Amino acid sequence: MKKIRLGLFGLGNIGTGVARLLNTNKEIISARLGAELELKRASDLDITRDFGVKFAPGVLTTDSDSIVNDPEIDIVIELIGGTGVAKALIEKSIAAGKHVVTANKALLAKHGKELFPTALQKGVCLSFEASVGGCIPIVKTIRESLVANRISAFTGILNGTCNYILTRITEEGIPFDEALAGAQAEGYAEADPALDVEGHDTAHKLAILSSLAYGMEMSLDDIYVEGISGISPVDIEFAQNAGYTIKLLAISKYDGQSAEARVHPAMIPKANMLSNVSGSLNAVSVTGDAVGEMMLYGYGAGMMPTASAVLADAVDIARDILAGGATRIPGLSFMDGHMNNIPIRPIDEITTGYYLRLAVMDRPGVLSKISGILGDRNISLKSVVQTERKLNGAVPLFMLTHPARESMMKKAIEQISALDMISGRPVLIRIEEPESL
Amino acid sequence: MKKIRLGLFGLGNIGTGVARLLNTNKEIISARLGAELELKRASDLDITRDFGVKFAPGVLTTDSDSIVNDPEIDIVIELIGGTGVAKALIEKSIAAGKHVVTANKALLAKHGKELFPTALQKGVCLSFEASVGGCIPIVKTIRESLVANRISAFTGILNGTCNYILTRITEEGIPFDEALAGAQAEGYAEADPALDVEGHDTAHKLAILSSLAYGMEMSLDDIYVEGISGISPVDIEFAQNAGYTIKLLAISKYDGQSAEARVHPAMIPKANMLSNVSGSLNAVSVTGDAVGEMMLYGYGAGMMPTASAVLADAVDIARDILAGGATRIPGLSFMDGHMNNIPIRPIDEITTGYYLRLAVMDRPGVLSKISGILGDRNISLKSVVQTERKLNGAVPLFMLTHPARESMMKKAIEQISALDMISGRPVLIRIEEPESL
Repeated sequence: MKKIRLGLFGLGNIGTGVARLLNTNKEIISARLGAELELKRASDLDITRDFGVKFAPGVLTTDSDSIVNDPEIDIVIELIGGTGVAKALIEKSIAAGKHVVTANKALLAKHGKELFPTALQKGVCLSFEASVGGCIPIVKTIRESLVANRISAFTGILNGTCNYILTRITEEGIPFDEALAGAQAEGYAEADPALDVEGHDTAHKLAILSSLAYGMEMSLDDIYVEGISGISPVDIEFAQNAGYTIKLLAISKYDGQSAEARVHPAMIPKANMLSNVSGSLNAVSVTGDAVGEMMLYGYGAGMMPTASAVLADAVDIARDILAGGATRIPGLSFMDGHMNNIPIRPIDEITTGYYLRLAVMDRPGVLSKISGILGDRNISLKSVVQTERKLNGAVPLFMLTHPARESMMKKAIEQISALDMISGRPVLIRIEEPESL
Repeated sequence: MKKIRLGLFGLGNIGTGVARLLNTNKEIISARLGAELELKRASDLDITRDFGVKFAPGVLTTDSDSIVNDPEIDIVIELIGGTGVAKALIEKSIAAGKHVVTANKALLAKHGKELFPTALQKGVCLSFEASVGGCIPIVKTIRESLVANRISAFTGILNGTCNYILTRITEEGIPFDEALAGAQAEGYAEADPALDVEGHDTAHKLAILSSLAYGMEMSLDDIYVEGISGISPVDIEFAQNAGYTIKLLAISKYDGQSAEARVHPAMIPKANMLSNVSGSLNAVSVTGDAVGEMMLYGYGAGMMPTASAVLADAVDIARDILAGGATRIPGLSFMDGHMNNIPIRPIDEITTGYYLRLAVMDRPGVLSKISGILGDRNISLKSVVQTERKLNGAVPLFMLTHPARESMMKKAIEQISALDMISGRPVLIRIEEPESL
């Protein structure tokens, strides 16, 4: 049986998973591929520890360059992460004519603009299904299954850590810090959780998917990013009672001229499928002109789901190699020369409904003052709830607005915050009501 | 720009959609493919009617053979349906060395066993994404994205007509016949709805997906099929109150030795994502050893969603042609020689929970008699509800059982049905509690 030889950079959690999956499912992969995927070399800084996986003699190495320079290796898999060593190894591998599979969203979001053209020029694949949504085949679906569609929007829950934290706050009413500590104890969150909870990991994925969906040049610069650390149980409780769930969403829309690209917590109606995505699971809904809205759902992270996506990419490339063909599909979905510099609209220009929570002094005239300020900015209220419960000496005032322009809301908030009857910072959560299926 | 030329058999709803999508999204398809997909010829029995789509001069023909015999046509699309003319045209096209795209589930489920080897022998593709789940990329996902997984199960809502009918009964409490009439009025159900509501259409799709997922030879013979015509509003109401939704499911499991393959209405917990799939939408959840459970969701039928899936297949083939490569992926996911004759276990051997509704005479001793019969067969009750509401002179008795063997339940039902305190036929609905995500 013909062999396709793999080199693997990085034996962390996912890298070990890839090695394990190649061992356990060797036969079924061969039965489907018609060739053997052989892990020829795997590099890591420390190869003395117990990986819990059997490696053939001579596979483990601390010398990454021995993978780059091995002419027998057809495909390299980069699972080191980050934008330093990983970038250099990918560049060297491409230069050596090797196909590359990576799960490195940060690298692609920041340097995809240079890496994809380089791969194209060398005639090799740069595959990245595992970089967004773990085992969810969102890259393949956008690039292949929706090839005949004009894609106009997608909405994703793309960070399992954030979704786990929000689910625990929702189900148990615990504060953010306690839910975060729980996520860390369960191994979902990193010791430094900022990349996850501040929304940057989600923004990386949003940049990649926007590029694929619309043919826009990848850019992180203009994506609005807001994390979940400001969300309190009291916000989630209010949302639940009003028929909403709070999720950290990647929201992207394209009207043919400019795009919206934003990451923030949002209230979505409970009837929407995305609101039922709990715990560490991920989901993405995509809207295309022919398919309408569709959704993919599954484990967005974790050793084996991510390893599955990595090997799916490797098999795809192996099939190209076996068929003797060149790279079949443009890395970013559009052929060279068909990528556009699509501008991202500033967040000030979006229109959406808002949830607003203020801590107000319990005195006459407060509500009329605040609703007056909102009314002056053309923001009309959908509902107002004031409870008697005291929160730091003040009472919480909850408001839901009809869709309004963000710039107007910002100005209103500034003015409201300056009132002496307001204590603390207002909490603002956007309401997304995607056209439901 | 290079052209890939298509021939189209059948200008019904889907065929017209394909022609329309080729017109409206010509540019974006070319920007992604790097070549033009040109509809060179399209055949139908009647080409005089207004299709609402612009065809280039000379495209329309009543002579299907002119497509088969046109050496310029690379890919034919069969959208006639049925197992007569469609089969002959596909066979002739394969013999002429043309790649084939079809949405014809009945044909594949019944004759796939012959057609796939024939295509393989000629070195052409026989692609069929549109045959299962409309625009949902379930074929591609199983065949490509899950290539490194042992697939152990899938559960699908694969018939939009049935799901529409069940949703309307659930939401409006109307009887089956009225919901069916509504589906017909909305254009969801055929004038003869038996293929849909009796579950046969779902069984065709189950046969195709089982083959893909496990590498089993396709067979309809041993699939247990039961439709939704026996479901009453009273059953759905009880299910709702007990925390379940009733759906027509395609259920398939594989333990490495034998498979379960069955189509029947089932009660699923409301917390399961599948229970939120409403109206004419479809969804499939798949379980693989690496990915765990994942789910795909979208429009399972309709002109444009199905046309999108047809053109995705055509573009995949066009990419193979442009790359100069041979057929890259085995039609049924496994290489020649790796398909197995996996037996389907008889329905009597499955174990599941049951909902049982009996119409009983309101006399002393009824419940003890019935529960005694169930207990004798090792069937234990989870809950029993008897209401005072009369139904044809008798009162309804509702029971939910713990998991029990189907053969035991059948015998118990026989014995219960023979009691003179029972009127009418017992209603039995299986309870599926998939390992939830």
